[in-house]
Amino acid sequence: MKTILSIQSMQRVLSKQSSLKIGLVPTMGALHEGHLSLMRVAKRECDIVVVSIFVNPLQFGESADLKRYPRDLTADRKMAQAEGVDFLFVPKATEIVPQDLETKVSVDKVAKRWEGAMRPGHFQGVATIVAKLFLIVKPAVAYFGQKDYQQTVVVRKMTNDLNFNLKLRILPTVRESNGLAKSSRNQFLSEKERASSAVLYRALQYAKQAVQKGERECAFLKKQIESMLTSESAVHLDYIAFCHKDTLEPVLQVTRKIVLLIAVRVGKVRLIDNIILDGKC
Amino acid sequence: MKTILSIQSMQRVLSKQSSLKIGLVPTMGALHEGHLSLMRVAKRECDIVVVSIFVNPLQFGESADLKRYPRDLTADRKMAQAEGVDFLFVPKATEIVPQDLETKVSVDKVAKRWEGAMRPGHFQGVATIVAKLFLIVKPAVAYFGQKDYQQTVVVRKMTNDLNFNLKLRILPTVRESNGLAKSSRNQFLSEKERASSAVLYRALQYAKQAVQKGERECAFLKKQIESMLTSESAVHLDYIAFCHKDTLEPVLQVTRKIVLLIAVRVGKVRLIDNIILDGKC
Repeated sequence: MKTILSIQSMQRVLSKQSSLKIGLVPTMGALHEGHLSLMRVAKRECDIVVVSIFVNPLQFGESADLKRYPRDLTADRKMAQAEGVDFLFVPKATEIVPQDLETKVSVDKVAKRWEGAMRPGHFQGVATIVAKLFLIVKPAVAYFGQKDYQQTVVVRKMTNDLNFNLKLRILPTVRESNGLAKSSRNQFLSEKERASSAVLYRALQYAKQAVQKGERECAFLKKQIESMLTSESAVHLDYIAFCHKDTLEPVLQVTRKIVLLIAVRVGKVRLIDNIILDGKC
Repeated sequence: MKTILSIQSMQRVLSKQSSLKIGLVPTMGALHEGHLSLMRVAKRECDIVVVSIFVNPLQFGESADLKRYPRDLTADRKMAQAEGVDFLFVPKATEIVPQDLETKVSVDKVAKRWEGAMRPGHFQGVATIVAKLFLIVKPAVAYFGQKDYQQTVVVRKMTNDLNFNLKLRILPTVRESNGLAKSSRNQFLSEKERASSAVLYRALQYAKQAVQKGERECAFLKKQIESMLTSESAVHLDYIAFCHKDTLEPVLQVTRKIVLLIAVRVGKVRLIDNIILDGKC
């Protein structure tokens, strides 16, 4: 595995491999089992796997959150190497986001609600940097985790709208043994908070089972989930949203496949999770 | 020459030529000698020349201007063929700008002043469509005329900021015999208006000569040019701007190379033109 530190050397190295199928796994580092699962599938499906590590300053609202975002390149390098990654692309923040960067990529409707409303500018930051990474690496396939559901919708819209000729693969959320979705931010949870956070998964599972048993009313499901979540005093609710799985517009009933999005705060950590609910099964 | 009518067939045809150097000349059709000069250079410098014809609805403010924009595909096709163009890419408006297009590319500072201020949304429309064309055609070189000077600055910023790995070639403005810059909109000028419009070129030439003779004060030059332009009663002034050639910020003196931008209205036609002034020569 080669570690590549600049845009130019990434472009130079990849231009020699132009006939090969490149898979890109964009990450912000602090790699965990969720990222590794993406790398494994990329390894199986592509000739060359590039993992980018870039803590994107544009997608952070508060600079405090950016500052404390976990970074451990040595550990990341070991993990990526063990997965057979070919190139670890670790560009400098000042090269990807130079002071005179004036161009932004923004996505409208699907980026407006939910996380977009809670974190103004977040998805513009994501779309801009993902577009840049796509243009630098020119992958045939790019891999994202379903955990950041709205992000996958925004990236898909951007990819289609701008005519990026690549395939997106969205892979299932990897979870801790208590059901908590793997996230680099989980390391900031205390033992007690980690235990409380498991309620998110229980809530998603409850919704799934209720729908399987025939429940279709989102208002009813929402009420139930709300009381599950608020029964944990450490958990502060941001939103519970039942939405169309592609447009993210709210829906009232579980007809066909919809997505349930949940966002909470536990201590200083924000947690998001989601599940697809299928009213037809 | 093949005429290609859809994004997918353009991508399919070009994917077979991936080892060749592709030159792209993006146009809005109604081809004239200015466009043809770009094609000629592209033909000399590249293995494959793609000319796109797309009247971009996003870059028009008033729908009246969009509606009356000249279109003549038969004539365009003949001219492009005569220049040895390989592919004429003429996608449908509904394919490039579908109703659910939610992604926009915007450039900040260099797109704010001058044309950006006169035509809100114009450069966002340009940047979005040029980005899409770059992603569809994947040119090694893209050709633009210097006549739309601010457009070349905006496209260059977007190209660099988003890490498009391509070269921009900006070629000199081609002019009518009276000095009027070639433009598809010139056909809307009456004989009399066309004669009046020649004052733009005279003004640019006056500035060039004054600078060659040692004049450095933009305020003085501006006053002179203003009185030249307003001496033609058919000419209504939008702006006269002396600017840094890359940032387009106003400058007070002609030190090194700067750009002089002029925009006027003559009857219902808006005309823009520019010249580089070199305070060092």
